Amino acid sequence: MEALKKKILEEGKVFPGEILKVDSFINHQIDVCLLDKIGEHFASKFSGVTKIVTIETSGIAFAVGASYHLGKVPVVFAKKETSAITKDDNYYAPSYSYTKKKEYQTFISKKYLSKNDRILIIDDFLATGNAVIALAEIIKQSGAEIVGVGIVIEKSFQSGRERILKQGLKLESCVRIKSLSDGISFE
Amino acid sequence: MEALKKKILEEGKVFPGEILKVDSFINHQIDVCLLDKIGEHFASKFSGVTKIVTIETSGIAFAVGASYHLGKVPVVFAKKETSAITKDDNYYAPSYSYTKKKEYQTFISKKYLSKNDRILIIDDFLATGNAVIALAEIIKQSGAEIVGVGIVIEKSFQSGRERILKQGLKLESCVRIKSLSDGISFE
Repeated sequence: MEALKKKILEEGKVFPGEILKVDSFINHQIDVCLLDKIGEHFASKFSGVTKIVTIETSGIAFAVGASYHLGKVPVVFAKKETSAITKDDNYYAPSYSYTKKKEYQTFISKKYLSKNDRILIIDDFLATGNAVIALAEIIKQSGAEIVGVGIVIEKSFQSGRERILKQGLKLESCVRIKSLSDGISFE
Repeated sequence: MEALKKKILEEGKVFPGEILKVDSFINHQIDVCLLDKIGEHFASKFSGVTKIVTIETSGIAFAVGASYHLGKVPVVFAKKETSAITKDDNYYAPSYSYTKKKEYQTFISKKYLSKNDRILIIDDFLATGNAVIALAEIIKQSGAEIVGVGIVIEKSFQSGRERILKQGLKLESCVRIKSLSDGISFE
């Protein structure tokens, strides 16, 4: 997606540890014109979607944008909890956040996933793939089918893509970043 | 908004302490058809909006829905932190969450609010109004104008409305709940 590449080059900021900050249009302020184009892009890559699953917080806006282009299907956002109290009416999967440096449980209520669903997973970033793998694990527990995974920005020099493809899932990223070690370069 | 009232009566669940759970279409699963109608409703009530401000997590989707009907203006979502470390490049306001029973700092980067902005505040719920009051305080620090406050579900038996109106702000709620003590009744 050329519009997104352009925006990343104009406004993205690289920090030590290969961190890309895109606060001005993705993670804190959201550029809704761009979000709409991203939603359109996802809709061109996946079909027959009955529900979109994402994870709080930054994935929510982009899941809604995708839904607008996929017949306004429902969006479910997984929640995170750091306590170990699990409830029977939720599906859980453990995950680890490198950004926040802590382990947490990702969960979705059993009520909102059915074995007849065809689910598209959406997230803003893909790095090691921990969040997406946790979502996939949760969806598999429900018996629903995973149509694929749509990512806004992929850091393709990390292990996320490989881990997702290994599970036999289709993966589409709007942009793939090859390296952040000497400025921003795309695949 | 009749469509929202109907949905609340069909799917809302009342819990002790006058808590209304609307997880099936607002807070965990999001009904995007309804979200779109809610966005349209907000757009009919406010004009000249240059930016929408909300607070993580549940406000984000509805802020995006409103943006779709207000010329796709940018959405900024305030973040919360429980630590006391403040930074010069953010505007802060203290707040207290009754749901999570803790004090936290709400903040927005100074970069994303300008004194030329005309801002619409959007949130999913209005009860005591703590979140909205914190957002208004942050926006005032930036010198931007607040066009008004759009709420999806107002519990009008709590103090939020009074506190917001006392600040001279225009308030529009899609539905106003008068009481939850004997089933759900609307204003």
